[in-house]
Amino acid sequence: MRVSSQIAEFDSIELDCGQTLAPVSVAYETYGELNQRRSNAILILHAFSGDAHAAGNGANGKQRGWWDNMIGPAKAFDTNRYFVISSNVLGGCAGTTGPSSTDPATGKPYGSQFPHVSIADMVRLQKQLTDSLGIRKLLCVSGGSMGGMQALQWAASYPDAVASVIPIASTHRHSAQQIAFNEVGRQAILADPDFCHGDYYGGTYPERGLAVARMVGHITYMSDDSMREKFGRRRRSAADESDMFEVESYLRYRGGQFVSRFDANSYIVITRAMDTFDLTAQRDSLEDCFAQGNTRFLVLSFTSDWLYPSYQSQEITRALRSRNRDVAYVELQSNYGHDAFLLEADGQTPLIKGFLENTHQRLTG
Amino acid sequence: MRVSSQIAEFDSIELDCGQTLAPVSVAYETYGELNQRRSNAILILHAFSGDAHAAGNGANGKQRGWWDNMIGPAKAFDTNRYFVISSNVLGGCAGTTGPSSTDPATGKPYGSQFPHVSIADMVRLQKQLTDSLGIRKLLCVSGGSMGGMQALQWAASYPDAVASVIPIASTHRHSAQQIAFNEVGRQAILADPDFCHGDYYGGTYPERGLAVARMVGHITYMSDDSMREKFGRRRRSAADESDMFEVESYLRYRGGQFVSRFDANSYIVITRAMDTFDLTAQRDSLEDCFAQGNTRFLVLSFTSDWLYPSYQSQEITRALRSRNRDVAYVELQSNYGHDAFLLEADGQTPLIKGFLENTHQRLTG
Repeated sequence: MRVSSQIAEFDSIELDCGQTLAPVSVAYETYGELNQRRSNAILILHAFSGDAHAAGNGANGKQRGWWDNMIGPAKAFDTNRYFVISSNVLGGCAGTTGPSSTDPATGKPYGSQFPHVSIADMVRLQKQLTDSLGIRKLLCVSGGSMGGMQALQWAASYPDAVASVIPIASTHRHSAQQIAFNEVGRQAILADPDFCHGDYYGGTYPERGLAVARMVGHITYMSDDSMREKFGRRRRSAADESDMFEVESYLRYRGGQFVSRFDANSYIVITRAMDTFDLTAQRDSLEDCFAQGNTRFLVLSFTSDWLYPSYQSQEITRALRSRNRDVAYVELQSNYGHDAFLLEADGQTPLIKGFLENTHQRLTG
Repeated sequence: MRVSSQIAEFDSIELDCGQTLAPVSVAYETYGELNQRRSNAILILHAFSGDAHAAGNGANGKQRGWWDNMIGPAKAFDTNRYFVISSNVLGGCAGTTGPSSTDPATGKPYGSQFPHVSIADMVRLQKQLTDSLGIRKLLCVSGGSMGGMQALQWAASYPDAVASVIPIASTHRHSAQQIAFNEVGRQAILADPDFCHGDYYGGTYPERGLAVARMVGHITYMSDDSMREKFGRRRRSAADESDMFEVESYLRYRGGQFVSRFDANSYIVITRAMDTFDLTAQRDSLEDCFAQGNTRFLVLSFTSDWLYPSYQSQEITRALRSRNRDVAYVELQSNYGHDAFLLEADGQTPLIKGFLENTHQRLTG
């Protein structure tokens, strides 16, 4: 499978907050080939800490893509049939314009001056990207977690530009608990004296705060069961502290690993985008968000996901059905918690394959 | 109701880790009167951040006790009938010897030199306290969360000295998830540069880290439902940041409030005691911990408590039944999550009242 990593630059983007970013870049990868009718394009959107590198098996020194078990020849998103585009989000730190990018007005990183971005802003930039690739109508937009929020926003913002949407382990708005977990992560970063109100570039990075924030995240991504299976109460000896629990060692490792690849300001900007995302606030009701267009929906959730519980997917499904929209909802059995959308390829693959095939037939038939 | 606040000092206590603390003090309160037969004494043990002030309605400038809805005349723990003792834990920061106490060897606070304490050590100190009060056999030992762990440890350590035990929303050992949440709190404290390896007394206290640790705790004490009911997605205006979510404001407030009354070293010492608590490791099996004595058990849990889920109380009940012990288990309906043991007085009161009355009759009849 050919993996193409690129950066597209656009003149500017107007944000919901009223500010403009100019210029604006977006990092993306593509897998497979766009057909002549341009009817086989699928847009894949990553979760909070993901990046554009969704697929590719880790050859040539590259890491394995975060959804490599789902994107590739004969996989759920079959690159023998479809042209898959994976886009990094606005506000991130993996090639797309974000707080660590250079502000052309000052020649320095935006830092604390980076504006508030919304999920709709992220989607607006993705629309510029797909327009630039000459795609008028996407066969499908899909993603898990925050990727699912973006997919839902696509259906609300551009109903005629997307034939189908697959939001996975996602929601149309965060609950108080989801906001609370994000807020703890933000407060851990703000508590780090190295944060310096976000203007730490060129100095010491607020790594301790960011690592703590990430540890909270990791607990919420797993289930009580999956943590028991993976760690139980097993101990391990550490150089600095004997008889540490394995789960402690794991969290410290993952926290420490995260700071080398993620930016604290992006953590704050992106979690804010998630927390303020609320489709019901964009129209009179959630139902009204989906009143237009012929977009088809496949909504997936997982039994043990307590961070994005199934009831949130069911709320989306209910709103769609009440507008007589074409929607199927499946709750998949899994012990992996929220991480299931990354891990449970076997459960998701036949559902997604069939749905995409059927959608493609309708679109082109 | 007369509330008596006192500090008892003992020569020393030998700890499971092999070290000795000498002298050692314990803060406690008593409510009601000990009868002539000394058969009506109940020991109440607090949760992680509690203190000895369990009851008292807030008169005379004192705060309302943390279990005032459960302890008092005609309440679940009826002070017209019973003599209730509430003891602060070893390692804490509310009058009992802990890391902020003066180390007689140096004349300075123990700080980083405070030894590891176990739940069994806490219970050993409580035993010294009840012995000093002339109580040979307690009518009951009860507490929620970590208080329930101590109550279970009483039954294992001193089966002949306790007629009944009521562990509420508790466990005989922490799961990987419970350890993980505590570890995040500890890491938030360790990440605070003011922590200085625990020797911050006389300097700046690691308030930012401790506040973040507390925020994580508060999320785990509530349920998804109770957070939705209490906060939803409501906003409030703040001086420093407009349109903050109410749940964010609440967490920041509770985090900030906590640092004024709690000690960061105690946070670490006590969460370590909880995480390393494992009744199954003290004998060949959990069942063997309860092989001796005639102690009766009333085990309570709450439907929405995801931090100390009902399955943990059921494991205890199963072990007790397999040894033909006198045990009743009730899962109470509640939306309050782990906080339910503090809030759901109506559900707990009739169960506890009847159980205590029956136990007292058997003990004295």
